[in-house]
Amino acid sequence: MAQRVEIILFGLGNVGSCVLKQLAAAAQNHLLRYNLEFSLAAVADSNGYVANIPLNAVNALVQHKQAKKALADYSNGKKLNSALDLVQNLSNPSSTIVIDCSATESTIPALLRAMQSGAAITMANKKPLSSNYSNWLEFTAAPRIHRLRYESTVGAGSPFITVCNRLIAANDKINKIQGTFSGTLGFVMSGLERGESYSNIVQKAFKLGYTEPDPRDDLSGKDVARKALILARTIGYKLEMDDIKIEPLYPTQFESLNVEQFLGRLGELDEQYAQKREEAKNNNQVLRYVAKIEQNTITVGLQALSQNTPIGRLQGTENMVEFYTEIYGEKPLVVQGAGAGGEITAAGVIADCIELAGVLKSSP
Amino acid sequence: MAQRVEIILFGLGNVGSCVLKQLAAAAQNHLLRYNLEFSLAAVADSNGYVANIPLNAVNALVQHKQAKKALADYSNGKKLNSALDLVQNLSNPSSTIVIDCSATESTIPALLRAMQSGAAITMANKKPLSSNYSNWLEFTAAPRIHRLRYESTVGAGSPFITVCNRLIAANDKINKIQGTFSGTLGFVMSGLERGESYSNIVQKAFKLGYTEPDPRDDLSGKDVARKALILARTIGYKLEMDDIKIEPLYPTQFESLNVEQFLGRLGELDEQYAQKREEAKNNNQVLRYVAKIEQNTITVGLQALSQNTPIGRLQGTENMVEFYTEIYGEKPLVVQGAGAGGEITAAGVIADCIELAGVLKSSP
Repeated sequence: MAQRVEIILFGLGNVGSCVLKQLAAAAQNHLLRYNLEFSLAAVADSNGYVANIPLNAVNALVQHKQAKKALADYSNGKKLNSALDLVQNLSNPSSTIVIDCSATESTIPALLRAMQSGAAITMANKKPLSSNYSNWLEFTAAPRIHRLRYESTVGAGSPFITVCNRLIAANDKINKIQGTFSGTLGFVMSGLERGESYSNIVQKAFKLGYTEPDPRDDLSGKDVARKALILARTIGYKLEMDDIKIEPLYPTQFESLNVEQFLGRLGELDEQYAQKREEAKNNNQVLRYVAKIEQNTITVGLQALSQNTPIGRLQGTENMVEFYTEIYGEKPLVVQGAGAGGEITAAGVIADCIELAGVLKSSP
Repeated sequence: MAQRVEIILFGLGNVGSCVLKQLAAAAQNHLLRYNLEFSLAAVADSNGYVANIPLNAVNALVQHKQAKKALADYSNGKKLNSALDLVQNLSNPSSTIVIDCSATESTIPALLRAMQSGAAITMANKKPLSSNYSNWLEFTAAPRIHRLRYESTVGAGSPFITVCNRLIAANDKINKIQGTFSGTLGFVMSGLERGESYSNIVQKAFKLGYTEPDPRDDLSGKDVARKALILARTIGYKLEMDDIKIEPLYPTQFESLNVEQFLGRLGELDEQYAQKREEAKNNNQVLRYVAKIEQNTITVGLQALSQNTPIGRLQGTENMVEFYTEIYGEKPLVVQGAGAGGEITAAGVIADCIELAGVLKSSP
């Protein structure tokens, strides 16, 4: 008999929709390969809460771009007050995975409640694990740490977290982690490198939908800092967001502008970034927006790096992370992969779900 | 109360000794982080079988280079006939991990028996999963596939298999895998690239202990082919070793020589490889020993690649694997890391053990 796992999904934006679509598309393979059947118990979205959606209906639903409305039609009419309600009385917690694809800290109580009752969780949402360190400790307490995955909080779905957690599991000592953690800023840096003006490339990224609705959410470096914080905590650093040195890609006085004003005044920064580019170029270097995790410190900002370093060779939205460890020695363990994209982010979540299904139940 | 997991180890060579040393060294961290205690139930080595070794005694034992003899002193005197005896009547299979660090197919019945009874297994030994495809099917049948790990069969402990299995879990379609899977041949290729003669660099690798006792075990390409076969089977190719096109780095008539004769006659090949190097160089290319897994076919052999490709830039014993997939699109997911070394190989085994401990038991 197949193992059955119920999914509860928080957040039905781009990533959440991709997760449902991929779960439905993978159903046959998951049954064949793992003897495993997922069903969708409930979806909690800011628009409301629905429950008991047949997974085989999901695919058609999320395709027609009315996902939220269509899913609501499947609701059994029981309107809930919060995500917490959904996990309050899980009928079968040890066969339940909660997936958080929202972008809010408000899911934290529900996630912790689910873990406490024996359910497994995976997040693409960066907020819970980059909130107060006390929350981190709650999420990662032994032995429930086995029921926690969070690959898609960092580097889209590229397996940065998985690789890091394996180094930790092997008791390797990680001396330094260095990498790029933003597809958007990778795109901006590649444009600068080609000679485009700063304002031009940022506006292009905005128009292509590569940035957040407010591009400052990317350019502030805070998103990169959140990811770096999650990696740093993974290797044992007891740090808060406030401990991170972040270099934003715009001056403080641009913070009070609205988005339109902000985009309009970007040209004022062109000369400054062109100059930095030329300085770097004269030293055979290129600019990259890099996070460095070392000696209990995180720094996030612009760096001039040789074109002949792995990070210096990165192009476009690709991300890379280098792990310098005791056992690996001088040459780091390196992972390079897409740094953005709903499909890739969702793929990371699905892989997490399969690992968690293995943890939840494994019969001979 | 801490989770207790009993380890049964097959093979006490370099990797097996490193595994025991690392398990002992990691004991405190494993308890703190995962609330997990490993104990060593038994060791099966070609020299004999010992059982009930306290893990805290292991460290001192394996340090003094008399590991086998010293471990034998801990034996409870019960001499067993085979590895199979050790797993025949496991008292607590669902808390047992069998680690295979041997280099023989003869462990297959014992490994399968252990899995059938509910135990988990991890292998650094390449032989079982590259033997007949029927064995592969036995090892990977659902749902016991959740209790199987084999990271260190490929690329030392670098997480090639983990990353590949996550792509599969996410139902991504892997169109091509390309990589280098031999630290030894990486060393040889780097030497050639620097202008050293073929015979010189192979003899150097032999003297440094980078090759197998018979260097032809590396130069034949069979070891690389085994690793490629394991990756190919992981992504669903139903192939046998005989299906692989392998280009060995010596002519057929060298096969009947003894090792000394073989090393002595390597000079006869210098001109041929110098010529290949120069041809490549004239096209700004370098020689690499590459495995390619594509369209249900595996090819293993020498390739001239641009110096500006990721594999072309590899130096020394490092390995790299590129995954070209449907979801990742044009740019592959790349993992680069050490391709040789007992410590790194053992670290991959330990990380597997932690994942398996999570699968074996996970209480709220």
